[in-house]
Amino acid sequence: MKKTKYTVAVVGVTGAVGSEMVRVLEERRFPVGTLLPLASRRSAGKRVRFGGRSVTVRELTPASFVGVDFALFSAGGDISREFAPMAVKAGCVVVDNSSAFRLDPEVPLVVPEINAADAHRHRGIIANPNCTTAITLMALYPLHRAFGVTHVFASSYQAVSGTGAQAIAELDRQVGQVAARKPVTREVYPHQIAFNVLPHVDSFLPDGYTREEMKLQNEGRKIMHHPGLRASITCVRVPVYRAHSVAVSAQFRKPVSVAAARRALQAAPGLDVVDDPSRNEYPMPLAVAGRDHCAVGRLRLDCAMKNGLCFWVAGDQLLKGAALNAVQIAETLIGRKPR
Amino acid sequence: MKKTKYTVAVVGVTGAVGSEMVRVLEERRFPVGTLLPLASRRSAGKRVRFGGRSVTVRELTPASFVGVDFALFSAGGDISREFAPMAVKAGCVVVDNSSAFRLDPEVPLVVPEINAADAHRHRGIIANPNCTTAITLMALYPLHRAFGVTHVFASSYQAVSGTGAQAIAELDRQVGQVAARKPVTREVYPHQIAFNVLPHVDSFLPDGYTREEMKLQNEGRKIMHHPGLRASITCVRVPVYRAHSVAVSAQFRKPVSVAAARRALQAAPGLDVVDDPSRNEYPMPLAVAGRDHCAVGRLRLDCAMKNGLCFWVAGDQLLKGAALNAVQIAETLIGRKPR
Repeated sequence: MKKTKYTVAVVGVTGAVGSEMVRVLEERRFPVGTLLPLASRRSAGKRVRFGGRSVTVRELTPASFVGVDFALFSAGGDISREFAPMAVKAGCVVVDNSSAFRLDPEVPLVVPEINAADAHRHRGIIANPNCTTAITLMALYPLHRAFGVTHVFASSYQAVSGTGAQAIAELDRQVGQVAARKPVTREVYPHQIAFNVLPHVDSFLPDGYTREEMKLQNEGRKIMHHPGLRASITCVRVPVYRAHSVAVSAQFRKPVSVAAARRALQAAPGLDVVDDPSRNEYPMPLAVAGRDHCAVGRLRLDCAMKNGLCFWVAGDQLLKGAALNAVQIAETLIGRKPR
Repeated sequence: MKKTKYTVAVVGVTGAVGSEMVRVLEERRFPVGTLLPLASRRSAGKRVRFGGRSVTVRELTPASFVGVDFALFSAGGDISREFAPMAVKAGCVVVDNSSAFRLDPEVPLVVPEINAADAHRHRGIIANPNCTTAITLMALYPLHRAFGVTHVFASSYQAVSGTGAQAIAELDRQVGQVAARKPVTREVYPHQIAFNVLPHVDSFLPDGYTREEMKLQNEGRKIMHHPGLRASITCVRVPVYRAHSVAVSAQFRKPVSVAAARRALQAAPGLDVVDDPSRNEYPMPLAVAGRDHCAVGRLRLDCAMKNGLCFWVAGDQLLKGAALNAVQIAETLIGRKPR
């Protein structure tokens, strides 16, 4: 698909990720001829700023995609399952942020810095990976290229904005209630998130893992073309507004040194090495919030296993973990290189 | 040492742990004849409630320990190194909460539920373990007994009260500053802790680990009498007031099942199994704060390794991680069983 300007639909435009998609399209000067902001009937009529103009949000319907080149979906799996095939039939290329199609063998799952070539093999839908997976792989993949990863043991520290706008409001409200010594009310999470941590992201599977936790191994295998990867993670919600962090112990086939790991990470696109403990410099969610690049630090040889390396990676899950990566996939398709 | 009543000194009595020590001595009806609250000159003259009376805090001096049976120290490593030997010379048994003597081969390092017998081999000083280590071992040791642990990969979620009373005030202040959209000021931590997480607890070692992180392997080996244990952890400060949590992946010598692991944990003293994902039940810092028992949950077979089990353990680091464990050590010495 090569044009001067493209018609781009954003499905779920009023959500936390959808609004970032619009901002990112504008900031990266994606060649948008017409922006088509789509949402549920409830949000239709609202207005979105784009390119110095105010654009009206339209209701998402089966007829929405006529003449649309790209549709960036971020309105949940049910909406994607229902409307993405219609969009494809209308000749549109869908970049889908939900988990609906990620493991479908006919759907590429893409982080452009890792497997941009996969994007070109699409049949209409390209899946955007899970946020924690994308952020973890931004640091893990360069190390995999250098040393060949075999096992990953990880724990996440995930921000409330990953749940959506209502979760940001919930944290705000609960912090105020605690400060005022009032009873804490819950609407989004099953337990208080203010001044607490919840080892519970997404729903539970019969084996005791959550769906979120299995994404690292399942999506990591597909994105890195590494079906033998073994990856275990505990996903934890923390009272942070924006940006996820992940503590990782990874084992590699080849011997690893901190110096060689640092070189591999410094050469990786979209990633900053922030690793000077003597100056208290390490990645933090507060420091990467709003930034395109992920950050990696706390590099050290794992004291518990051979060929093991520990690191700590943080990234804005609304950007690299969602909106930015989706726009980068569209950029890949129009021939732009990852940057 | 068998008496009807004991003279008990608490060194650092005005600190976060010291004040808990006084409360725990009272709550558990430790047979205190005389309580001797000790602190720096700055705090001398303050008053402490104990047994329905108000007791005056005295300045810690070399002469403080004459006639004292037990001295519970929690005033930092420097104070312990200076005053604990003097206390021992005066005939006192020291239970030291600092890291000063923990790895000294002549000093027992004790979690009474695990290695109570070691306490009796003291030469005047018994060390209280690191808080994160003690909480992790409360769940790991019963599993080790059942299956033989070989490797541990962990990540912590540590509360600000582990740093002390000023850190609680810092989180309070910063939350207010963020809410008021005022500049955030820092006094205790090198970076904002409100709505952020810091992969930095204690000081950094040349190999990239922090001192805190190496305690799990070093102290874990000594407490469990398991010199071959390999344990790697990333220690992270989170904006939680009280109680630490730890996500653990552990590998065992013998095959492990969730059912057998659950039985081993349910039979363990001082530990509650809180593990019903279908009802959103799992350990949380907010739920264990102020409680003597630690809680373990999120039990599942580790999908990344053979004979591996994942679990999530939380405990009040001022209690089992510090004050409670110290009083339990004194109880062990006067012949009380762990409870």
